[in-house]
Amino acid sequence: MSAKDGLTPRATNFPDWYNDLVLKAGLADYAPVRGCMIIKPHGYAIWELMQRALDDMFKATGHENAYFPLMIPKSFLSKEAAHVEGFAKECAVVTHYRLKLDDKGAVIVDPEAKLEEEMILRPTSETVIWDAYRTWIQSYRDLPVLVNQWANVIRWERRTRLFLRTTEFLWQEGHTAHATFDDAEIESRRMLEVYRVFAEDFMGVPVLTGIKTESEKFAGADHTYCIEALVQDGKAIQAGTSHHLAQNFARAFDVQFQTQDGGREYVYATSWGVSTRLVGTMIMAHSDDKGLVAPPRLAPVQVVILPMGRDEEIRSKTYAAADAMAGELRRSLWRGPDFTPSEYPVEELVGPVPSPIRVKVDKREKESPGVKFYEWELKGACVRVEIGPRDLEAGTCVLARRDTGEKITVPLGDAVSEIDRLLTEIQSGLHARAFAFRQESTRIVNTKAEFEAAFEGEGGAGLVCAHWDGTAETEAMIAEKLRATIRCIPFVPLNADDNEPGVCVMTGNPSKQRVVFARAY
Amino acid sequence: MSAKDGLTPRATNFPDWYNDLVLKAGLADYAPVRGCMIIKPHGYAIWELMQRALDDMFKATGHENAYFPLMIPKSFLSKEAAHVEGFAKECAVVTHYRLKLDDKGAVIVDPEAKLEEEMILRPTSETVIWDAYRTWIQSYRDLPVLVNQWANVIRWERRTRLFLRTTEFLWQEGHTAHATFDDAEIESRRMLEVYRVFAEDFMGVPVLTGIKTESEKFAGADHTYCIEALVQDGKAIQAGTSHHLAQNFARAFDVQFQTQDGGREYVYATSWGVSTRLVGTMIMAHSDDKGLVAPPRLAPVQVVILPMGRDEEIRSKTYAAADAMAGELRRSLWRGPDFTPSEYPVEELVGPVPSPIRVKVDKREKESPGVKFYEWELKGACVRVEIGPRDLEAGTCVLARRDTGEKITVPLGDAVSEIDRLLTEIQSGLHARAFAFRQESTRIVNTKAEFEAAFEGEGGAGLVCAHWDGTAETEAMIAEKLRATIRCIPFVPLNADDNEPGVCVMTGNPSKQRVVFARAY
Repeated sequence: MSAKDGLTPRATNFPDWYNDLVLKAGLADYAPVRGCMIIKPHGYAIWELMQRALDDMFKATGHENAYFPLMIPKSFLSKEAAHVEGFAKECAVVTHYRLKLDDKGAVIVDPEAKLEEEMILRPTSETVIWDAYRTWIQSYRDLPVLVNQWANVIRWERRTRLFLRTTEFLWQEGHTAHATFDDAEIESRRMLEVYRVFAEDFMGVPVLTGIKTESEKFAGADHTYCIEALVQDGKAIQAGTSHHLAQNFARAFDVQFQTQDGGREYVYATSWGVSTRLVGTMIMAHSDDKGLVAPPRLAPVQVVILPMGRDEEIRSKTYAAADAMAGELRRSLWRGPDFTPSEYPVEELVGPVPSPIRVKVDKREKESPGVKFYEWELKGACVRVEIGPRDLEAGTCVLARRDTGEKITVPLGDAVSEIDRLLTEIQSGLHARAFAFRQESTRIVNTKAEFEAAFEGEGGAGLVCAHWDGTAETEAMIAEKLRATIRCIPFVPLNADDNEPGVCVMTGNPSKQRVVFARAY
Repeated sequence: MSAKDGLTPRATNFPDWYNDLVLKAGLADYAPVRGCMIIKPHGYAIWELMQRALDDMFKATGHENAYFPLMIPKSFLSKEAAHVEGFAKECAVVTHYRLKLDDKGAVIVDPEAKLEEEMILRPTSETVIWDAYRTWIQSYRDLPVLVNQWANVIRWERRTRLFLRTTEFLWQEGHTAHATFDDAEIESRRMLEVYRVFAEDFMGVPVLTGIKTESEKFAGADHTYCIEALVQDGKAIQAGTSHHLAQNFARAFDVQFQTQDGGREYVYATSWGVSTRLVGTMIMAHSDDKGLVAPPRLAPVQVVILPMGRDEEIRSKTYAAADAMAGELRRSLWRGPDFTPSEYPVEELVGPVPSPIRVKVDKREKESPGVKFYEWELKGACVRVEIGPRDLEAGTCVLARRDTGEKITVPLGDAVSEIDRLLTEIQSGLHARAFAFRQESTRIVNTKAEFEAAFEGEGGAGLVCAHWDGTAETEAMIAEKLRATIRCIPFVPLNADDNEPGVCVMTGNPSKQRVVFARAY
């Protein structure tokens, strides 16, 4: 497969388009181990930018990072009843700790080196962390504990997709401990809001915030909040979750604290996480048939400068102009648009932090301008600057936006301020476009016939707001028949009358409110 | 064990002192899995500062980050003959991918879910990365590939020690690909120099740079360079390694490239890594019987301000003064001393980058000043600022250095500039003290009797420069009899005549040069 073959168009086959894009833009590759991926430098650069932005917000809200072991004794998993149900089916198990050479010189597992108790590779770290919190937490003075971990986790998924669902993935998992249910509730909502800000104001992806149904909540949680995104083929993606664990893990691991009045009580917990799946979400939300479209705040290359010229003398001039512009851009701080207004403001979050512009000058002489245009569109540079000999004579350069393709010619002296403006417009514009798409893709459905029609085809059907009778049976039946799931019960209704009582579209039984159904990745 | 018990003195038992310090200062804790550790927030903060400094230097020298899978097919390990010898003995092996509940409701490994080919957890990633490079690298235009990975790795060590040697540890591993042996050689020396700069100018730990003997080189390398540190009990620590892998892995994984003149050749490789063991090295190099002594560039808390006062009215004033000073410190940029001169300069490295001062204000009212002094000494805050009511009346404050214990009284208006000066003095002073200690702990030994006497006791013996006949047999015999190993053959001789020929201290056979022996962690 050569990069020059182009991508499968989105309209032809969305999943193929996505895979083509991820592979050809050099974001990731398949690994030799089934279901695993290699995150290549261009893709990892996106994840690093995501990590930095999230980590800054976690620290601004008082969290510290720590690191807990990858390998967890098998017995830990069974201490919390719901948790083991949820995770046992997809655990990688370490049973031996040595290889050896057999008689024929082949490498085999040494049967002598069998572990007394098998270990699982963490699918999530609640168990090993709450085992540790038993010694960390003695008194109300030790609370709250506000810890986050950046780590790899393993879940043996049957069906995988690059970035969106892989056997090994990278993520962060926050694990906090609190003296009261209410403190834990505030924390779980606060971190959901951090995720919303990140999704909307960094990724440019509008998300629903809401609560999961009992069937969809985390195995071991009291309740689970989520942010849900919609991507271009009308499918939803669960982009992040924040769980209120109540005292479930504290009871399972016997973590009690001395209260201010001398009593003893179990500790309240939250956990919350986002993963490399956000990279896939961002790609699917914005990109086009030419390749990656990335919001400037998370684009590895915000500006690419292409100095052109057929002979060395001309090139020496365009190169000098390109280098000067690159230097100026690197020294200039881009701030971008304000954050979107919040329904649940997090006081500690500061607004956008200005940062130096990430710029590359492409001086490869063996590649034609056409090839370079093509490659940087594929790789999602937000703004392309063309400096040719005629531009230089006229004292101008050409700026091309990746998102709209629009080209403008500007005086060289104005280029930096124009680029600053364009980056801000692209950042806002991508969010606005994705928001408009979600508006168009959201509908109310009130009858069974309409509901079944909505999910008739194979693909995504947008967000379908419909009454549901509140039972797990109906939910399971819909999932089975229509492969649609309840993405969440939104905090803010999508339609004015969503919270009015009605009748379930499938069973006709009474319903308290409409919920949001979709096909999901 | 209460934090108030104090630490075992270094002079009584150095390993016990170290363990006490790590546990009581809240740097790390033992994990429920044998040989693993939990890195607690205060310890992880040191690692994060190390990561940031190293990552900046890797990027300045042209490297990009990527991520490769944790799980490696068992067969990969056997492709490079020396590599499998070196690593098979200490591999964690994944054999199953599912748990289930048995008849009695106990969680067991599902025998139906056995992997066709077992996976090992990466002890290092050469194999999986060179398998990928086969598709990444086609032509000389694709070279060099300059990639680094931040990851966890697993080596099933028999004897473990917090930070210094654990079954799971965190590290970075650079894996680069080059067109020629010489390009790879330059890379391996360049990255060793990056490590030296990091050890000396960030950690404040002087290191020998040199080459490992054949017995001590990496399994699969052509040759291995290292930085070697000496800590306070006279033992050495291998703090970082940089390997020239020649074409060994390219041959094993068939990675060839088209050369500029149309031929085909195997690719040349390097790999280089440092790990969380650096945290342990830094602790052992500088800390004292009161707790952690950290160089300011890597100290999580550079300045702690203790505002004091018995009643609320007074406290409102000292608190205000403390907050004002903290704000000023956070806004001020500390640069610290210049980097040490280099024998092998890396052009791309810029000097020290000024950064905001990391400061905490300790307003806990339930703890006495004495307890706070004790805790912040234990946790290694570089400078303690005391602001009491009398200080405030006099318009002064007290500054106490963690490294020397020295206290000075300065006008409040001068505090920020004085703290800047003190941090710089502490950063240089720790390096100078460690360097003087190494000088005192280095000796020439020319006879067998002296050599055996040097390693008579159980503990460290400093750096012993002695002639060696160059054979692996003699090396092994010395390791066996005296538990001393050749740390390296230094690039720069420690003594004027080290590179003159002589006779081996153990065998009397001819020797080309003195090498450096030590007991090591």
